[in-house]
Amino acid sequence: MSNPFHQHLDELNALLVDMARRVGAAIEQATAALLEGDTAAAEAIVAEDELVNALQFQIDDRIIELMTQYDAVASDLRFVLGAVRISVDLERMGDLAKHVAKSVLLRAPAAVIPDSLRLDFAAMGAAAARISEKLVGILAEQDYLQATQMSLDDDELDAVQDRIHAQLPNLGYGSETAGDVVLLARFYERFGDHAVRVAHQVAYAVTGDIHLDRS
Amino acid sequence: MSNPFHQHLDELNALLVDMARRVGAAIEQATAALLEGDTAAAEAIVAEDELVNALQFQIDDRIIELMTQYDAVASDLRFVLGAVRISVDLERMGDLAKHVAKSVLLRAPAAVIPDSLRLDFAAMGAAAARISEKLVGILAEQDYLQATQMSLDDDELDAVQDRIHAQLPNLGYGSETAGDVVLLARFYERFGDHAVRVAHQVAYAVTGDIHLDRS
Repeated sequence: MSNPFHQHLDELNALLVDMARRVGAAIEQATAALLEGDTAAAEAIVAEDELVNALQFQIDDRIIELMTQYDAVASDLRFVLGAVRISVDLERMGDLAKHVAKSVLLRAPAAVIPDSLRLDFAAMGAAAARISEKLVGILAEQDYLQATQMSLDDDELDAVQDRIHAQLPNLGYGSETAGDVVLLARFYERFGDHAVRVAHQVAYAVTGDIHLDRS
Repeated sequence: MSNPFHQHLDELNALLVDMARRVGAAIEQATAALLEGDTAAAEAIVAEDELVNALQFQIDDRIIELMTQYDAVASDLRFVLGAVRISVDLERMGDLAKHVAKSVLLRAPAAVIPDSLRLDFAAMGAAAARISEKLVGILAEQDYLQATQMSLDDDELDAVQDRIHAQLPNLGYGSETAGDVVLLARFYERFGDHAVRVAHQVAYAVTGDIHLDRS
């Protein structure tokens, strides 16, 4: 990509990469805060999410600038449409990391998750962080082959979520703890789903194949 | 709106209105299926969601067609960007109605929600249906004044969700039921959040005011 239009597209993509980096850091920090009951860290994550939201507005402005200045061809427009969708998903991933952090603040000084599920949530956090790291690479390199593999990583999040649900009836938690656990597991699972959608958007922008899962 | 470009925008908007109608019908039917334990209705809702997803692809194609054929000014581009975001939110609202329906199928022939929470879920279903109806009007008429009122309706969903959470510790449900209840309440609450986002997008497209809540 070398002409002025494509330089603008590269700059647009750099904003998406920045968003992906930030939401990846946020979910990693949120998991640490969850496992340690660290309210100061949780508060910082909630505050940082504003920066992610601000990036989304910057992306919108950049897109409108870009579209008013240049006549784009269909393949470039696919990329631009993809950028809009990707920014929506990344913004949501930031929200989900924020939700994890907020659950820490809501129950402090008590722990949100019971000791018996710490390993499962550590596994979800690790999988989400790994997915985010891959996502940064996929976006930065427009790596659509890697992008098509993303749902395999996401399967791990789904598997841990299923394991947590299966344990629930036997662990004898109160309703409030059970509710917290189910919601938290869902936040991680949704984080993964959005990452898969972003990856599919990259694949779509590169290949034009719309028959990728949006369910 | 009268020139060919604006006719195309109107057609694009008609697709969004169609999506909004369908997801409104879906959440209404899903609530009935939830309250009645009606698995046949639940299966139909799951199947119908494919049509909502298909509309999203149609909207993408229409947007690319539109942008390749015409030079749009910034205000029209705001509308087009808004249409992309709106279609993402509406597709997600369809998913959430589908999730309610799937929970019916997952627990059948048992009821998903306990009798003591039937009225609360009926209230959430009624609020979600009412919000959807308003949303159809807001989209069809580009009614940004009504759009700015949408978060008031959404407050009711949040209030019922809080009420359900507050009751949980005292109702003595098992962990599985508590988990189901918390997730279902969240599906309705998220449905409302997405409706508010759609309404804000309409307001944004009409007024250009980006300082609307995206949290």
